[in-house]
Amino acid sequence: MASTARFDVIAIGNAIVDVIARAEDSLIEAEGLVKGSMRLIDAEEAERLYASMGPAVEMSGGSAANTLAGMAALGCKCAFIGQVADDQLGHVFTHDLRALNVAYDTPPLAEGAPTARCLILVTPDGQRTMNTFLGASHLLEQAMIDEARIADSDILYLEGYLWDPPLSRAAMRRAIDVARGAGRKVAFTLSDAFIIDRHGDDFRALIKEGLFDILFANEVEICALAGVEDFDVAVAQVSAEVPLLVVTRSEKGAIAVVEGQRTEVGAEPIDAVIDTTGAGDLFAAGFLAGQAEGRSIAECLTMGAVCACEIIAQMGPRAQIDLKARVAAKLG
Amino acid sequence: MASTARFDVIAIGNAIVDVIARAEDSLIEAEGLVKGSMRLIDAEEAERLYASMGPAVEMSGGSAANTLAGMAALGCKCAFIGQVADDQLGHVFTHDLRALNVAYDTPPLAEGAPTARCLILVTPDGQRTMNTFLGASHLLEQAMIDEARIADSDILYLEGYLWDPPLSRAAMRRAIDVARGAGRKVAFTLSDAFIIDRHGDDFRALIKEGLFDILFANEVEICALAGVEDFDVAVAQVSAEVPLLVVTRSEKGAIAVVEGQRTEVGAEPIDAVIDTTGAGDLFAAGFLAGQAEGRSIAECLTMGAVCACEIIAQMGPRAQIDLKARVAAKLG
Repeated sequence: MASTARFDVIAIGNAIVDVIARAEDSLIEAEGLVKGSMRLIDAEEAERLYASMGPAVEMSGGSAANTLAGMAALGCKCAFIGQVADDQLGHVFTHDLRALNVAYDTPPLAEGAPTARCLILVTPDGQRTMNTFLGASHLLEQAMIDEARIADSDILYLEGYLWDPPLSRAAMRRAIDVARGAGRKVAFTLSDAFIIDRHGDDFRALIKEGLFDILFANEVEICALAGVEDFDVAVAQVSAEVPLLVVTRSEKGAIAVVEGQRTEVGAEPIDAVIDTTGAGDLFAAGFLAGQAEGRSIAECLTMGAVCACEIIAQMGPRAQIDLKARVAAKLG
Repeated sequence: MASTARFDVIAIGNAIVDVIARAEDSLIEAEGLVKGSMRLIDAEEAERLYASMGPAVEMSGGSAANTLAGMAALGCKCAFIGQVADDQLGHVFTHDLRALNVAYDTPPLAEGAPTARCLILVTPDGQRTMNTFLGASHLLEQAMIDEARIADSDILYLEGYLWDPPLSRAAMRRAIDVARGAGRKVAFTLSDAFIIDRHGDDFRALIKEGLFDILFANEVEICALAGVEDFDVAVAQVSAEVPLLVVTRSEKGAIAVVEGQRTEVGAEPIDAVIDTTGAGDLFAAGFLAGQAEGRSIAECLTMGAVCACEIIAQMGPRAQIDLKARVAAKLG
């Protein structure tokens, strides 16, 4: 059944520019960082860490925004809500989304905080360790939520990272009500284990209320949400309450569960992992694009796997290759 | 004879952040651009063109600064003089040089113009078409010239691009006198044919006065400078007046002429040209690093060819691979 909505998906997420530098493991150790993790840092720590980093490349990022960029590249109609400041990095972030035809009109903050940036250290094994200065991004107010546009989108996609700041949490909570009131679907990504540590009770309550139609998680996150150590137990528990559960498992591929029916896909083969930044974001992009095209769950998983594979074969979370061609080569 | 100078090279150049996007040939045509060229644009045109560009990656650039970044990666002691503004892109430019241990202390402009940016369109053939908004960069004043540091550097390296703005031209003219007064060498790169169109008389006069010890050019530039169409005639004419002339010839390699003695090197083999941005800059980096190491002219040319080859196999003008290891693999 073709939808008459104007957008396939509207996402609310952090509006971040990534600052990506190669780093030796010794720097990760010297800085006391947990490899592969994301942590929030303040402006002072951002300055200090930046000074210890090597030459970098700047590229638009943000988890949900990366997902939209991937979906737009795959031909979906997308809209974004997120807060930048009126500065050069905010200009970069805005340009890069609009250049992909993503509708993005959240007015920039005139003052108060600069555009968010994420200092990403990529070690020789391709792992990324993220240090995020949220700046303007966590100042997203409820007034910035374009309710008409949410009502005009098939899916509202929310990133868990934005559940942490009180202002944006309230904005997202409102957006959920708007989407449901308009009969739209709500998709949520758990983002990171630390978010679940802080807000797991919220998420479990929202799930109990039946407010999430699609839930994205990785292995660590689904276990944290379920409060169990066994992956299959966690999947069984959460999938009983969510219409569509999607769990990524890195090199083990991914699974989706719909009404107790579990579908699996292996990871795509890859020569060398260059940078894992954006792997989960692009998996979600491929999966949701498949949903928008009305494909089977197995094909949606494959599209996710192809996109994730392509993004970890390059530096940064925005695809520099033709994703659509890669997916077409795989699925036709 | 080992030098006692503190720096192998000090460069004066544009302080630019590159904004690099892939583009189809149709965009180059629609914009009426000359593929492979560099043009100067104002703030308004920069905004307009940026809006028509695809998603981009930001990376520090600037011709002489790229050369220094390459030399620093090869182990040379380098210093830079160039003008950024006190803004986010200026911060990026400054960080990226300092992260390579390049001494760079030119105070940022507090107001008046933003940091320069170069909008670079990279077509499928790997050619780059550059559109430069000079902003703060062309406001480099003579007062910013650190005379003690110039006197303490074996080579003063100047980019022709900065000969165009009157302020920076005066600053560079002073720097030449300081370097020569201290018994140091002066190296100059002609940068672009349009610079020679405007300032060829200046350059020919400086050469006649014997102020350039090393001159870098490409085929088009050397012919423009000599005012002849025949490459060999141009080389013979200019090399008679410059102690060391280095001319790059893209896929035909490069030549150097010292006291009438011509040495040639072929281009390094390459699988695919990804982006030619910085090819000439990195050739100069390899060549000058060879000079700093006291290598033969043939080896200096080879180092230049290796560095140029590596930089065109990636996006952007700052090496993301280990240049030193590549040169060592070639020359030991």
